[in-house]
Amino acid sequence: MCFQQMRLLVHPLLLWGRISRRQLTHVGRRGLASRDTMRLVQFCHLNKEREVRVGVDLGQGIVDLKSFDSSVPSTMREFLETGHRGMECAQRALSSGLCMVPSSEVGLLSPVTGPEKVVCVGMNYRDHCLEQNAPIPKEPIIFSKFPSAITGPFDDILLPDKSKEVDWEVELAFVIGRRGKHIKEEEALSYVAGFTVANDVSARDWQMHRNGKQWLLGKTFDSFCPLGPALVTTAALKDPHNLGIRCRVNGSVVQESNTDQMIFRTEKLVAWVSQFVTLCPGDVFLTGTPPGVGLFRNPPVFLKKGDVVECEIDNIGAIRNTVI
Amino acid sequence: MCFQQMRLLVHPLLLWGRISRRQLTHVGRRGLASRDTMRLVQFCHLNKEREVRVGVDLGQGIVDLKSFDSSVPSTMREFLETGHRGMECAQRALSSGLCMVPSSEVGLLSPVTGPEKVVCVGMNYRDHCLEQNAPIPKEPIIFSKFPSAITGPFDDILLPDKSKEVDWEVELAFVIGRRGKHIKEEEALSYVAGFTVANDVSARDWQMHRNGKQWLLGKTFDSFCPLGPALVTTAALKDPHNLGIRCRVNGSVVQESNTDQMIFRTEKLVAWVSQFVTLCPGDVFLTGTPPGVGLFRNPPVFLKKGDVVECEIDNIGAIRNTVI
Repeated sequence: MCFQQMRLLVHPLLLWGRISRRQLTHVGRRGLASRDTMRLVQFCHLNKEREVRVGVDLGQGIVDLKSFDSSVPSTMREFLETGHRGMECAQRALSSGLCMVPSSEVGLLSPVTGPEKVVCVGMNYRDHCLEQNAPIPKEPIIFSKFPSAITGPFDDILLPDKSKEVDWEVELAFVIGRRGKHIKEEEALSYVAGFTVANDVSARDWQMHRNGKQWLLGKTFDSFCPLGPALVTTAALKDPHNLGIRCRVNGSVVQESNTDQMIFRTEKLVAWVSQFVTLCPGDVFLTGTPPGVGLFRNPPVFLKKGDVVECEIDNIGAIRNTVI
Repeated sequence: MCFQQMRLLVHPLLLWGRISRRQLTHVGRRGLASRDTMRLVQFCHLNKEREVRVGVDLGQGIVDLKSFDSSVPSTMREFLETGHRGMECAQRALSSGLCMVPSSEVGLLSPVTGPEKVVCVGMNYRDHCLEQNAPIPKEPIIFSKFPSAITGPFDDILLPDKSKEVDWEVELAFVIGRRGKHIKEEEALSYVAGFTVANDVSARDWQMHRNGKQWLLGKTFDSFCPLGPALVTTAALKDPHNLGIRCRVNGSVVQESNTDQMIFRTEKLVAWVSQFVTLCPGDVFLTGTPPGVGLFRNPPVFLKKGDVVECEIDNIGAIRNTVI
């Protein structure tokens, strides 16, 4: 549903009658939403060819950037590679008020798929270290998931036969927006395209006791990285390190903390990891989890089929995944 | 240099006068080389736009598949995704004798770049376990590198300031040719496109003593995965698990063993890892290293600037990388 040919005289969101008054207060002077409030998503049209598209989420509608400008790439990774050009195009699309699709007609994907890297950080919340009587790390502990673990914000978590100890971990995630190596902390945020919500699903038996104690396998089963729903641009968040963060399992709060508990913050993590590897657009970082994981409950609690896990961070959003 | 319009009446390699008699004995009845002897490469034209191309290496010349058929993808990962169609096109290109470029006019890249996964196996040679008095693992130990670590077969290894203990590890590598999950051992080889040579360069200080003993960082500095020179198709190797494998540093042999020392072989590794994750075309596996690494020498020896490391596997090829 692209309105490009329609030359609407009134705001198309008002035509739909679907946008709330609160959402309209976010409309900036330069268009439907200012750069400060952009929520980038990947989606597919449910009724079309299901091709992946990049869009801007406005609440009840998504602006389809490729419908607005056919030169816009189809994936977020490619979109981020275009740098300012892509973001400016998104601005123009928003200002135009064109090419919006009702949320009911799209399927939301993870805001990034197929990144070169999924960089994860262990033991990065003070309160999570206290929970397990572990010392506060002096350096970030970095591990990874394969990109194949990424799944959509409302997709299912596949419970593997091979594990009896599948656990939840709500995490603040961020996505790299431009290429860099040996990035300084002072400049690090300019390399971050935005923030989103992740669940670092973990098979504790495989993470802790098998595979020579290398965490990778326990962390990287297919579907073990629900991510989304939107990539909230960096400038949209006043302070990403002062946000309520929580996880609910079947409606009960199991993790509840604040990102101010992070030991190594976004700037430090970007600087640290870029000493080892070149970061590139689309790279995803998961920044560690607060207390309340199933493993450290007494007795331990693990996920079972039918459980619904919700991970939420204030001002960013919430993902909701059913275990099947 | 594409001969497509020239309609040569004689074999173009003979026109060049560059191919050896031994190489010509590999020419199959169906064309320049049978499917059994295909050595797939990624390369760029040195004198053109340096666009990545997929080709078939015939020794002193490379058949440029995209020049033969413009619908052939530019990267090996995409080429492998086309499955039989890509391989049949390569066959036709070889049979035609067209579109060959002299080796002197190309730059060889790693046969795969930007895979979704670089899957690595630790402690997978009996003789390497004996060398360090370590028990023979009962299950494969899986870790990973980021794809950004991959570098070309003759490119430089960048010695990082952050490590004083950079070591070599010659390894048999293989590349996945088709998508699969829960693959059975009996069918596993049909998922393998081919084999190549890798150097699993390792910063021992970071692998063994830092980063909470998670190996990732020590294994994944930029350039820590030289790979190539060609992807030798699976059918081309009578037995990938009975090949001489060696590493030379500055001309001296430092590792010398046989792939028959592998504890978990290709079939087992494909089956094992595919229990956790969906494998897809282009995924690279590094299958572990034999004895002779610098760490276990007395006294230990590590790489320094100017060193030249050659990794070689019989019937597959050799890579040669200078430490800078």
